[in-house]
Amino acid sequence: MSEKLERFREYLNQMEQYKQIMAQLEWDMQTQTPKKGYDYKIDAITYFSGERFRIATSEETGKLFEEMEAPEEYEALDDAMKLTVRRGKRDYDRNKRVPADFYEEMVRASNVSGKAWEEAKQKSDYGLFCPHLQKMIDYTRRYVAYMEPDKEVYDTLLDMYEEGMDSAVIDRLFLQMKEELVPLFRKIMEKPEPDNGCFAGDYDINRQKELQAYLLSYIGFDKEAGVTGESEHPFTMEFGPGDVRVTNHFDRHDAVNAMFSAIHEGGHAIFEQGINPAYVKTAAVDIGMAVHESQSRFYENILGRNINFWKPVYDKVGEYLPQFRDIPLDTFYREINHVRPSFIRTAADELTYCFHIILRYELEKAIFRDGVNAEELPGLWNDKMEELLGIRPQNDAEGILQDMHWSDGSFGYFPTYLLGTIFDGMFLETMEQELGSVDTLLSDGRIGEITGWLHEKIHKHGGMRTAAETIREVCGQEMTAEPIIRYFKKKYTAIYGL
Amino acid sequence: MSEKLERFREYLNQMEQYKQIMAQLEWDMQTQTPKKGYDYKIDAITYFSGERFRIATSEETGKLFEEMEAPEEYEALDDAMKLTVRRGKRDYDRNKRVPADFYEEMVRASNVSGKAWEEAKQKSDYGLFCPHLQKMIDYTRRYVAYMEPDKEVYDTLLDMYEEGMDSAVIDRLFLQMKEELVPLFRKIMEKPEPDNGCFAGDYDINRQKELQAYLLSYIGFDKEAGVTGESEHPFTMEFGPGDVRVTNHFDRHDAVNAMFSAIHEGGHAIFEQGINPAYVKTAAVDIGMAVHESQSRFYENILGRNINFWKPVYDKVGEYLPQFRDIPLDTFYREINHVRPSFIRTAADELTYCFHIILRYELEKAIFRDGVNAEELPGLWNDKMEELLGIRPQNDAEGILQDMHWSDGSFGYFPTYLLGTIFDGMFLETMEQELGSVDTLLSDGRIGEITGWLHEKIHKHGGMRTAAETIREVCGQEMTAEPIIRYFKKKYTAIYGL
Repeated sequence: MSEKLERFREYLNQMEQYKQIMAQLEWDMQTQTPKKGYDYKIDAITYFSGERFRIATSEETGKLFEEMEAPEEYEALDDAMKLTVRRGKRDYDRNKRVPADFYEEMVRASNVSGKAWEEAKQKSDYGLFCPHLQKMIDYTRRYVAYMEPDKEVYDTLLDMYEEGMDSAVIDRLFLQMKEELVPLFRKIMEKPEPDNGCFAGDYDINRQKELQAYLLSYIGFDKEAGVTGESEHPFTMEFGPGDVRVTNHFDRHDAVNAMFSAIHEGGHAIFEQGINPAYVKTAAVDIGMAVHESQSRFYENILGRNINFWKPVYDKVGEYLPQFRDIPLDTFYREINHVRPSFIRTAADELTYCFHIILRYELEKAIFRDGVNAEELPGLWNDKMEELLGIRPQNDAEGILQDMHWSDGSFGYFPTYLLGTIFDGMFLETMEQELGSVDTLLSDGRIGEITGWLHEKIHKHGGMRTAAETIREVCGQEMTAEPIIRYFKKKYTAIYGL
Repeated sequence: MSEKLERFREYLNQMEQYKQIMAQLEWDMQTQTPKKGYDYKIDAITYFSGERFRIATSEETGKLFEEMEAPEEYEALDDAMKLTVRRGKRDYDRNKRVPADFYEEMVRASNVSGKAWEEAKQKSDYGLFCPHLQKMIDYTRRYVAYMEPDKEVYDTLLDMYEEGMDSAVIDRLFLQMKEELVPLFRKIMEKPEPDNGCFAGDYDINRQKELQAYLLSYIGFDKEAGVTGESEHPFTMEFGPGDVRVTNHFDRHDAVNAMFSAIHEGGHAIFEQGINPAYVKTAAVDIGMAVHESQSRFYENILGRNINFWKPVYDKVGEYLPQFRDIPLDTFYREINHVRPSFIRTAADELTYCFHIILRYELEKAIFRDGVNAEELPGLWNDKMEELLGIRPQNDAEGILQDMHWSDGSFGYFPTYLLGTIFDGMFLETMEQELGSVDTLLSDGRIGEITGWLHEKIHKHGGMRTAAETIREVCGQEMTAEPIIRYFKKKYTAIYGL
């Protein structure tokens, strides 16, 4: 190893340690910090994220990247290290263009805004949040303009969550979804609703946790390389491929929701656990959000909402939660594919979920392209809700205040959820060409072969490829929404007898 | 605030953040890190403890202490800050004498040794651990010799856990204990054993956890300023007075052990939660181990093994664990004071526990005074066990491999357990002089008054005083084992009709 490479690797090791304690502190805050310990935790998070930023933007770090970019060093690197230098240099240059005092000001404002959002949501009073949201829009615009002065603001935002993604691609995909799926949804709405009264009941939380452990193992989560926790909202957090953590939120009166959250987060976790271990401490472990979401949603929806997934394990569900012994699998299947309009994204079924994302994407474009300001957003939100789902929120808590994302400036994040679903349609068709019927694999309990395929085609590559490259290499074509539209049509035609 | 003091406070804040993440990483490793995530955790612990050490021993830090030691700065400080400067300067000078690469090497070796110990214990194979233990002995000897080149090694170790403590004091106290308590133990052994068959059973772990939460609240643990976790061995860890954590280890077939571990760790935690909040980020939050242990053992033994403690709460125990409804309180009382020789320290009764500590103290002296090496220790251990308790371990898992302490170099720690018990005798006599009968307070459910007294006399002072100062100020006399010997004699005379 050259002396320069050695120094660079030392830097990567240092960043890895910072990444790990940031994950550690965040994990603790979300899963177990007691009320009176919150302030200490925030102190530590603030201190170490400041230190990390200081190191990452120091002159010495800049020099390290310059050294590694020189052809005699760069050409000797393997692909993961080349990516690390390329992306690292880009991020370094971006960060260097942001004035330190502006950045600090924005971080402070985002903390204040997050708190204002919480209060506004609790009181269902958008007025309390509106000025902060406007500030976050303005800060984001300036922040992104500092980083990429020559690029369109919203495209830069999209690119930050999934490299290479822009609104031209998304417009094409989402428009197709909207044109085909809104009529499908309307047709379903003409059919009678399934009766779900039999799901009401009291489900022991400890038994739900045991069932979660069983389901996670079943889909391939390696429990020697991960743990589970509880938090207000389910999430996945990786410390490294040998330590990937998922949380869930349990409800005594609803066992189904937690089952699907477990499968969803399990999908994220299996991806992380499956990354080539040689990529540790390189940029190749940083997976784009759309590809990441494609895996959680593949497990949750493509597999988990398929009746054949449950055939080998439904008896087990009844062992953990005896109430399910009295619910026929068909009834369960109808309920987990129960399409209905609803206000809250995170509670939406597989089909209407798409509309929730399209709505947010269109609003983000309105903000950053058309200059729509914060005051106009609730009206626009409600109009679009009516247009897509046929319902109109009666208050802001069930409308624009429901998501945290915008309160801390995470604009451009939402579209990745739906892109993941679109990719899933493509992965499913390719998988069936190569492995045969997924229904058969699932009903035979051969889910390991599915995970094996995903591992070979997607998981082990981590973040080595952009979404577009992944799609091209796995499916041999460009991104298209047609497969997922075919999937939805076929599925709901069968369930609802359309 | 002077500019110098401001800089010094900035340094203290930085150290506080490092302290917090070290606690955070350690907590995680002990309570939830999955098997395959262990190495990352050790990497992070190694990295940040190295960073902390680097900062704590830097030239700039040395200058800060020099500045603060100057009379014009020092005299303006409050007592907690004076202590911080005094202790900090002593530690700085000690640490400066330790080469950084040696320290890092030792930390890494201690983690490896910890793992080797675990495996060795599991397999009851001392051979797997012996070379690591010898390494830890050698590292410790060198480490301490670097820090205090002119002081006796074992006295320095004792002083590190309880400032001002040395083997002259401990020899005197422990010899008295041995002379009085071994004959008492032999007398008890002539009496018939209580029958404890009724405790056999299957105790639901979740209900045991609920009982733990109840007991912790009852003795005064503030659950908004702490959380509970599970680990192989129970321990207490503080992040700050607003976040103090205790763990327990639950066993389906033994509910009593976990109850007493909860009360023990609860005692530690109440102490930490009770420290004057003004002491945050000063050395006054660092409590000597003997005084610390005096509080955990006061709750566990002096209070918890008193029949009157249980009178107001025994019905509750039966609510959580229905098996206890059929066990009369008197039978429970006999069982929790059931004196018998046993191999495992942590399972020992209140009386024979003293012998377990004396054994370890004598072995530590043999190592550091007489140069006994790791290979000779199991034989020595077994001989002393026979001398004190009349039994001889049949394998190393129930002998020298039982404790973790030596595996990470914590030599000099064990004696603090028994010192704590000795202090408890003194505290109990003083408390009764000032508050009246503890039996009455407990049976009336007025445990809050006991905690209140301990808070005023001990807890709120944190680590402001040495053990000797605490004893002198609380009890008005020097350390003596007589009160605890009187307590044991009185207690067992009544229980066993001696």
